[in-house]
Amino acid sequence: MAPVKKGILERLNAGEVVIGDGGFVFALEKRGYVKAGPWTPEATVTHPEAVRQLHREFLRAGANVMQTFTFYASDDKLENRGQSLKYTGAQINEAACDLAKEVASEGDALVAGGVCQTPSYLSCKSETEVKAIFKKQMEVFIKKNVDFLIAEYFEHVEEAEWAVQVLKTGGKPVAASMCIGPEGDMHGVSPAECAVRLVKAGADIIGINCHFDPMTCVQAVKMMKEGVEKAGLKAHYMVQPLAYHTPDCSCQGFIDLPEFPFGLEPRILTRWDMHKYAREAYNVGIRYIGGCCGFEPYHIRAVAEELAPERGFLPDASEKHGNWGAGLEMHTKPWVRARARRDYWENLKPASGRPQCPSLSTPDGWGVTKGHNDLMQQKEATSQDQLKQLFDRSKSH
Amino acid sequence: MAPVKKGILERLNAGEVVIGDGGFVFALEKRGYVKAGPWTPEATVTHPEAVRQLHREFLRAGANVMQTFTFYASDDKLENRGQSLKYTGAQINEAACDLAKEVASEGDALVAGGVCQTPSYLSCKSETEVKAIFKKQMEVFIKKNVDFLIAEYFEHVEEAEWAVQVLKTGGKPVAASMCIGPEGDMHGVSPAECAVRLVKAGADIIGINCHFDPMTCVQAVKMMKEGVEKAGLKAHYMVQPLAYHTPDCSCQGFIDLPEFPFGLEPRILTRWDMHKYAREAYNVGIRYIGGCCGFEPYHIRAVAEELAPERGFLPDASEKHGNWGAGLEMHTKPWVRARARRDYWENLKPASGRPQCPSLSTPDGWGVTKGHNDLMQQKEATSQDQLKQLFDRSKSH
Amino acid sequence: MAPVKKGILERLNAGEVVIGDGGFVFALEKRGYVKAGPWTPEATVTHPEAVRQLHREFLRAGANVMQTFTFYASDDKLENRGQSLKYTGAQINEAACDLAKEVASEGDALVAGGVCQTPSYLSCKSETEVKAIFKKQMEVFIKKNVDFLIAEYFEHVEEAEWAVQVLKTGGKPVAASMCIGPEGDMHGVSPAECAVRLVKAGADIIGINCHFDPMTCVQAVKMMKEGVEKAGLKAHYMVQPLAYHTPDCSCQGFIDLPEFPFGLEPRILTRWDMHKYAREAYNVGIRYIGGCCGFEPYHIRAVAEELAPERGFLPDASEKHGNWGAGLEMHTKPWVRARARRDYWENLKPASGRPQCPSLSTPDGWGVTKGHNDLMQQKEATSQDQLKQLFDRSKSH
Amino acid sequence: MAPVKKGILERLNAGEVVIGDGGFVFALEKRGYVKAGPWTPEATVTHPEAVRQLHREFLRAGANVMQTFTFYASDDKLENRGQSLKYTGAQINEAACDLAKEVASEGDALVAGGVCQTPSYLSCKSETEVKAIFKKQMEVFIKKNVDFLIAEYFEHVEEAEWAVQVLKTGGKPVAASMCIGPEGDMHGVSPAECAVRLVKAGADIIGINCHFDPMTCVQAVKMMKEGVEKAGLKAHYMVQPLAYHTPDCSCQGFIDLPEFPFGLEPRILTRWDMHKYAREAYNVGIRYIGGCCGFEPYHIRAVAEELAPERGFLPDASEKHGNWGAGLEMHTKPWVRARARRDYWENLKPASGRPQCPSLSTPDGWGVTKGHNDLMQQKEATSQDQLKQLFDRSKSH
Repeated sequence: MAPVKKGILERLNAGEVVIGDGGFVFALEKRGYVKAGPWTPEATVTHPEAVRQLHREFLRAGANVMQTFTFYASDDKLENRGQSLKYTGAQINEAACDLAKEVASEGDALVAGGVCQTPSYLSCKSETEVKAIFKKQMEVFIKKNVDFLIAEYFEHVEEAEWAVQVLKTGGKPVAASMCIGPEGDMHGVSPAECAVRLVKAGADIIGINCHFDPMTCVQAVKMMKEGVEKAGLKAHYMVQPLAYHTPDCSCQGFIDLPEFPFGLEPRILTRWDMHKYAREAYNVGIRYIGGCCGFEPYHIRAVAEELAPERGFLPDASEKHGNWGAGLEMHTKPWVRARARRDYWENLKPASGRPQCPSLSTPDGWGVTKGHNDLMQQKEATSQDQLKQLFDRSKSH
Repeated sequence: MAPVKKGILERLNAGEVVIGDGGFVFALEKRGYVKAGPWTPEATVTHPEAVRQLHREFLRAGANVMQTFTFYASDDKLENRGQSLKYTGAQINEAACDLAKEVASEGDALVAGGVCQTPSYLSCKSETEVKAIFKKQMEVFIKKNVDFLIAEYFEHVEEAEWAVQVLKTGGKPVAASMCIGPEGDMHGVSPAECAVRLVKAGADIIGINCHFDPMTCVQAVKMMKEGVEKAGLKAHYMVQPLAYHTPDCSCQGFIDLPEFPFGLEPRILTRWDMHKYAREAYNVGIRYIGGCCGFEPYHIRAVAEELAPERGFLPDASEKHGNWGAGLEMHTKPWVRARARRDYWENLKPASGRPQCPSLSTPDGWGVTKGHNDLMQQKEATSQDQLKQLFDRSKSH
Repeated sequence: MAPVKKGILERLNAGEVVIGDGGFVFALEKRGYVKAGPWTPEATVTHPEAVRQLHREFLRAGANVMQTFTFYASDDKLENRGQSLKYTGAQINEAACDLAKEVASEGDALVAGGVCQTPSYLSCKSETEVKAIFKKQMEVFIKKNVDFLIAEYFEHVEEAEWAVQVLKTGGKPVAASMCIGPEGDMHGVSPAECAVRLVKAGADIIGINCHFDPMTCVQAVKMMKEGVEKAGLKAHYMVQPLAYHTPDCSCQGFIDLPEFPFGLEPRILTRWDMHKYAREAYNVGIRYIGGCCGFEPYHIRAVAEELAPERGFLPDASEKHGNWGAGLEMHTKPWVRARARRDYWENLKPASGRPQCPSLSTPDGWGVTKGHNDLMQQKEATSQDQLKQLFDRSKSH
Repeated sequence: MAPVKKGILERLNAGEVVIGDGGFVFALEKRGYVKAGPWTPEATVTHPEAVRQLHREFLRAGANVMQTFTFYASDDKLENRGQSLKYTGAQINEAACDLAKEVASEGDALVAGGVCQTPSYLSCKSETEVKAIFKKQMEVFIKKNVDFLIAEYFEHVEEAEWAVQVLKTGGKPVAASMCIGPEGDMHGVSPAECAVRLVKAGADIIGINCHFDPMTCVQAVKMMKEGVEKAGLKAHYMVQPLAYHTPDCSCQGFIDLPEFPFGLEPRILTRWDMHKYAREAYNVGIRYIGGCCGFEPYHIRAVAEELAPERGFLPDASEKHGNWGAGLEMHTKPWVRARARRDYWENLKPASGRPQCPSLSTPDGWGVTKGHNDLMQQKEATSQDQLKQLFDRSKSH
């Protein structure tokens, strides 16, 4: 019989680093099991072997959390995307729990049941209606006895609060993660204020996932932490960013980039970028560190390798990875052997091989949500002067 | 009982497009099952589920060939990389055949047993010794009754000839693929001459894999084809390039790029780049079109989608892919919906999100193999002027 | 006898656009008459024909102000830079006035006598001592009867106030221009507060020159204007920015860029960038619009051409410039003729021809002045992640 | 009475380095005296002070040749561009000679009378008619007693031969310079063959000017030299390239770049690029080294400074230039002082400050002249793959 695992709060209270997994929708899209656009997780029913394998790879890479692949698996979303005709939400959610539990049992990982923002909220349904959506998904998670619950990928703090309030009734630890950056939620509520509201709603762990690159997300979580501490409250912190460089994003993140979602390749982070991310997140005081869209297993492994000194061990998959490129030491070419060292990879500025492409884009649709007409006008302008102006303008907020 | 599949030559003789799979070593390195540096395929024994899953994804993406994951699985290489202590070459090769056959049987795919260049050749072992290495691997393939054989990833045409001569004794169709570019093999033998020699050695299919980006490889295969036709010979043609942009590569390909192998992310091709590649390869007269390092299943799917009009059908994985981004048609934001069209993605110049990085690199170790001291001196120089000079110099050869 | 020209305040009070000239030190450095490093203007004595010619070119390009070439011509600076041994400050300043007056008389331009920041202030000399320096230069300007006075290129608002207080005693209109960006002066005094203090010190015209690119400078002047208006005060506004793109500058501007001063070429603005600058400056309410380092006569002409509708006339040098590239209309190649139109040049994203160079740099010495140790640490880091982090950090100030 | 200067051939025969001046049309366009499009030199009559000043600056920068500003000053060209109504060709050519001679007499410089390609040739006029055009200009040069003659900026070797044949009748040394790259003239005549034909036509000095960047032009002159030597002939060699980086140019040079002529700024060479150019030209055996479009006086000074060890002296303008940035040694900031050294500037990769711009362009109109339809089709394609393909294709010629 398996020993009882330490729970998520026990680990975080003990100061342990908890490593999250990476995002499933993008990884499985590349593997052929998720459709970009709808992004729904019916693969848990139709192709369990593919979902199981990805769980295993993240486990092997060092992840301590197997998140159920239930993104956009609420009934209203499935209906909206045309998937409800084929499989019920319950089927998809239950299958997701079974897969996550199966793989979690193969290592030291917990299972987290996840809900995310709903079309019902965006179409202005009532609090009661929206909460009923979350409750339905939660009931599956409770029935399957997951270890804890995550409300993630919320652009509006109000909806995130509702989700937390529902999930708290399940009697499990609750994490709440918003897909916002330093500029705050879609109504301009700052990260600090979002954080305070989520803690007050009952979240044990708060943070940021998706929409922005690692350094931006860490920065936003830092702002959350400062808000919570200033309010005299307490929480644990999590971060699960994109694996894409997005310095040119505006408040709505990578969705507005012209490259989303089919031309993001040149922005993919290297494993060495992940080392910097993991260290920065750790330094800021975040202890639940994972990934979202764009993360592949080797990205999570890099997080685990960077934090190996703190955790005291390497992940299983490091048996297939030399420290800082050490696997190149036996190469026949001396100039390739010369790459088997930390400072080489830390200082490399990798070329894109795309001399006809720019290095930054202008996001589409800037400011529409907030009604910033002046920003919209500037969106028309395409020169780098205009970009600079936008940077300056935002600096002077 | 399964219907008998058409063989590789039957298909090619009938003018069909045969789609290859992508490279396993890079894909499985990212998933945590192959170590960069040694690059050996012991995962066929230790983690068959991971190898099987990758085969399945390529099958689902449209591949008609399941190549056995036997790269660097010759006894001398395994010994050289320290793997022979754990598993014999026979174990690894047999397991690889079983996995490829299992998945091939799930769809319309053939199994190809693959050998590649050996450390024995590089360390100047005799023809007899080198041929014995190939023979040993081939015997496994024959015992497992694969559909055809591939000798791939050869930098020296002489060694490739030896491999073809051995494989021909197996009584199966033989393909031969070199990892060279338009400048030819490591001794300066041109693609045209390499091609003629391989055909004369008995290869039914000839081409290029790895080391260069798609357009460069297609160009080199075109040069092979012109050589074969000029010599009054006949052959089928294959191409299995990198999924990385490498316009700055010299004759030894991407291994000399400073980003190899852990910083190549910004160079990864998009699916739309793959459409252009597939079309160009087809136009040049190549009918066996696949991929090598860097290819993920969605890249192969893009090849299959581009050539769907010629083949008459889409791959299974296209159920999870809207034509030219059509999956975005229902997006809530109008500017994202506006991306659901072909000309948008065809004309996009994707940004790297890395403004402090260059777009091209200077390869390391230029000219060492050929003893070009002047090129080595220029390697020291780092300005773009020097790059230009190198371009010009190579143009004026 | 020449008609009496309208004074600077008469023009600005009447709502006219006054066009400034470009910077002399960089333009004459390229022509071989100013030494980078010392940057002193002894060429007024040694090579008057070169200084006169540059004045003429700016006049012809549309400038309404001939600024005396007296940058760094205070006695303490000349001594510091070793020039006082050869020529006295009085000689250099007088020769500068004579040249500016001679050329101004050839067209509709005023002469402005200019002083700038002093080594005496930086080495903590007393207010009395520093003011004596300004007074000495001013006395030359009064003796030579220039039309108005400019105190420009100040990094510390306190020193700028002292300069204004001295210049006001001359009985001429006084303009005050600081070389700061939106983050304020070297002690962190905001543009708004600097502006209010300068107006209170007696400046009739206030603004920004040098150190940042046009859009950044315009943004900073806008912040000045808002400060002045909020304080219930009144002023005219001027801007004379760099002709270099500097989106990667920190608070101390282009001096900290690794390219300063001998590698700035790839950053030079096109004439079309200048059109955008002139329009933006005008829209913000700035009416004295000129240039500083990097401006060549054709840049000033572009400002004059953009604002020709408002001013009602084109500059003399437009006889040698087709509107928006119209001079190409007769070209023999149709694709060059196709460039003879406004939207072509407005939308062009000009390539650098330097694929091995980045598009942004990390400034040296970040945060030293403000003692930001954390920023200094980050300066060591060279990845784009770090850059992003710095951007975010500065946004969240 | 001035001492008799050594002639151009005496200098070259003695192995001296002769430094040319820079191009006048681009430099004076920026100063407001030449119109882009027509590019005619009527400023010699209308604004002699501007032309004289530019001559002086190049002289001061180290130039040993004052080329008469007679580009496009043939009667047929002036008529074609509408200038003949105002000034006769004789007026413009004579004024140009007077200015060049006046400034040459102020230093150690020779005067070279220059002719260039004619609209008469392009419109298929007879050899007699075309030669009459050249003869008319030459007669002015002979009357004004210039030191030698240059036939430059020829795209067709046949026309260049005609020009040389005419100029030889003047009894002065003759230089012939074509505006071609390594791919040869507009009819595909190689640089080697062009060179042999020009020497046989009577040219004493042959080489390349304009249309390509320095390293490309040096490479093309090297090919000329190899051709001449292989033919058992003798000549001196000259090179006067662009001051723009043009690695993305096709056979017709920078005119086909989308940035020509009003968006070339990001391509401007730094002074340190010029050091590399001068050294490379010298190493190849070229002894007449100057510049064309884009060169400013400081670029010529950099050539003179690089070759100061060979020449034994620095140019006058070096009194205003510290060796390799030495002028920064006294700067107040330590990180700016740290730039006062050779290896800093030699290794700097200057950023463009334009993150939304590419680093290379696709030239317009590729292949039109040669009727390469396949290249034209590819011109439509805009991806970097296509670029790579074009590179490869040209490599495999």
